Amino acid sequence: MTTLHPFDQALRLEAAGADRPGTWLGHSSPDYWNMVGPFGGTTAATALRAILLHPALLGEPVALTVNYAAALAEGPFSVTAKPVRTNRSTQHWTVALSQDDANGDAGVVMTATAVTAVRRETWSVNDTPMPAVALADASERLHFAAVAWTNRYDMRPVRGMVPQVWDGSGVDSLTQLWVRDDPPRPLDFPALAAMADVFYPRVWLRRATRVPAGTVSITTYFHADSRQLAECGEGFLLGQAKANAFRNGFFDQSAQLWSEAGVLLVTSTQIVYYKE
Amino acid sequence: MTTLHPFDQALRLEAAGADRPGTWLGHSSPDYWNMVGPFGGTTAATALRAILLHPALLGEPVALTVNYAAALAEGPFSVTAKPVRTNRSTQHWTVALSQDDANGDAGVVMTATAVTAVRRETWSVNDTPMPAVALADASERLHFAAVAWTNRYDMRPVRGMVPQVWDGSGVDSLTQLWVRDDPPRPLDFPALAAMADVFYPRVWLRRATRVPAGTVSITTYFHADSRQLAECGEGFLLGQAKANAFRNGFFDQSAQLWSEAGVLLVTSTQIVYYKE
Repeated sequence: MTTLHPFDQALRLEAAGADRPGTWLGHSSPDYWNMVGPFGGTTAATALRAILLHPALLGEPVALTVNYAAALAEGPFSVTAKPVRTNRSTQHWTVALSQDDANGDAGVVMTATAVTAVRRETWSVNDTPMPAVALADASERLHFAAVAWTNRYDMRPVRGMVPQVWDGSGVDSLTQLWVRDDPPRPLDFPALAAMADVFYPRVWLRRATRVPAGTVSITTYFHADSRQLAECGEGFLLGQAKANAFRNGFFDQSAQLWSEAGVLLVTSTQIVYYKE
Repeated sequence: MTTLHPFDQALRLEAAGADRPGTWLGHSSPDYWNMVGPFGGTTAATALRAILLHPALLGEPVALTVNYAAALAEGPFSVTAKPVRTNRSTQHWTVALSQDDANGDAGVVMTATAVTAVRRETWSVNDTPMPAVALADASERLHFAAVAWTNRYDMRPVRGMVPQVWDGSGVDSLTQLWVRDDPPRPLDFPALAAMADVFYPRVWLRRATRVPAGTVSITTYFHADSRQLAECGEGFLLGQAKANAFRNGFFDQSAQLWSEAGVLLVTSTQIVYYKE
C-alpha cells in the first residue's frame, strides 16, 4: 500500500461526472490548515491541478492568478476549470471553486485565471540572480505553533525571520529562506504554486506588530518547464519576499523562488489585506 | 459641444440592455492602435471601466488581472462584468470581453478578475521609495513612428530608452520614464490601469534586438484611493519597469508608478510572449 504525500492528499480531485466536464470534487485538508481556512497555497495549487487534469490541456503553466473570495470552510468543495480560448501555442483558462454554505447554497470561494503554453527554446537570460546565501547560512527551522500547514514546509530563514519581540521595531519587509516540502517531495507546478505563498505576512515583519492579515489575490509566473522542475528533485528552493507599499488596509508582496542551482523558477506577487 | 478626451472616447461603453445586466458594448479605438490590435493598456482600462460602471459596485479598485486571449480586432466588442462575491468590505469580479469573428461566432478575446474594496485608514508606509530622478533630468519625448497609441502618452525617458542601434549590445532591462496622458487628463483608475502597460517590451532593451513580443497577462495593484488620484491632477507620473527572467518564449516585467510627490500609486507585473 502506498501512502499519498500530504500535499497530494490535499490536492485529491475526483471527476464530478460525465455531465459536468471540467468539474472536480475535493475536500479541505487538515494537514494544511491555517488560521481560518486552509493555507492559500494549497488552494492555488488546487486551481492549477484542476487545469492540469483537464483533457483539453495545451502545454504547461505560464501564469496563474488566484483570488480568495471567501475563507474555504472545512469540508467538500467543487472546482471547475474551463479552457476559454485555445490558440496555436497558448491556452487561456478560468477556474472557480465553490462550496455550499450552511443553508446548502453554493457560493464562489475562489476564482482564478491561468495561461498555459507550449514553450519553445529561445534566447534566455536570468536578470535577477539568486542572492548569495547558502543553505548552510540558514538558521534553524521556522516553527509556528498552532498553524498546521507550517509543519508541511521545512523553512530555514536566512534573514527576515518572524520577529521574536512584537515591539513595533521593524525596519524592512525582506525575508529570504530556504524551503522544501516536509516530507520531501519531487517538485512540480502545483508545489511551486503553493510555495510562492509560504511567506508569513510582510506587515508582521515591517511593523514587528502582529495584526490580522490574509491574501486577497496572488499571481504567479512560471519561468521553468517540467524538465527544469524535474532537475530540482526534492531539493531546497531559495525564496525571497518583500513588500513595496502598505496603504490603508492592503499591502503587496513580490516574491521569487530559485532552485539550489540558481535557476529563477517563479516570480510571484500578491495583495494582502491587513487590519489596523 | 464638449469633445471627449481620446482616452474617454476609447473607453466609451454603452449598456447592452436591461436583459443583459453587467454587459456593455464598445468599439476599438484608432487613437490607441498598436501593431496588431489596440494598446493592451486600453483593453485593461476597459475591463476596469465595466466594473466601475456596474450598479452593484462596492468600493474602489485594489487588484486587476487582465489576460489577453487573442488580438482584439478593429470593430465592436461586448464586455461583461460580474460581481461573483460581495463581502462586507471587499468584492470579487470576473470580466470577459468578446468579439464576433469573421463567421459571426463570438470568441473570448480577454478575461479579467478584479477585487474592489472599501478602504479604511490604517498604519501605512512606502517600502519602495521613488528613484531620485527629476522630470527635469528626463531626455526628449519618446517617439515611435507608426504606432498610434504612443502619441497618446507624453513619455520622457530618464534611463533605459529604446535602443538607438539594434546590435545585440543590451546589458539590463530597467527603464525609468515620466509619463502622462496627451492631451493631459486628470488621473483616474482606468488611466492608471493603462499607464501600468506603457513600457515597451523589456526584451528589446535587454537584447538591443527587436523581436515580436506581446503581453499575455498583466496584474495591477492600486495602492491609492480616488482622493490621492485627484491630488495628482494632470501631473506626470514616474514609471519604472524591469524584467526578472527571460526564458523560452516568455519574460516577466515588474513595474511601479509614483506620483510626482513620491506616492507609490501602482505596482504591476506582466508576462510577455516573445519570439526567438
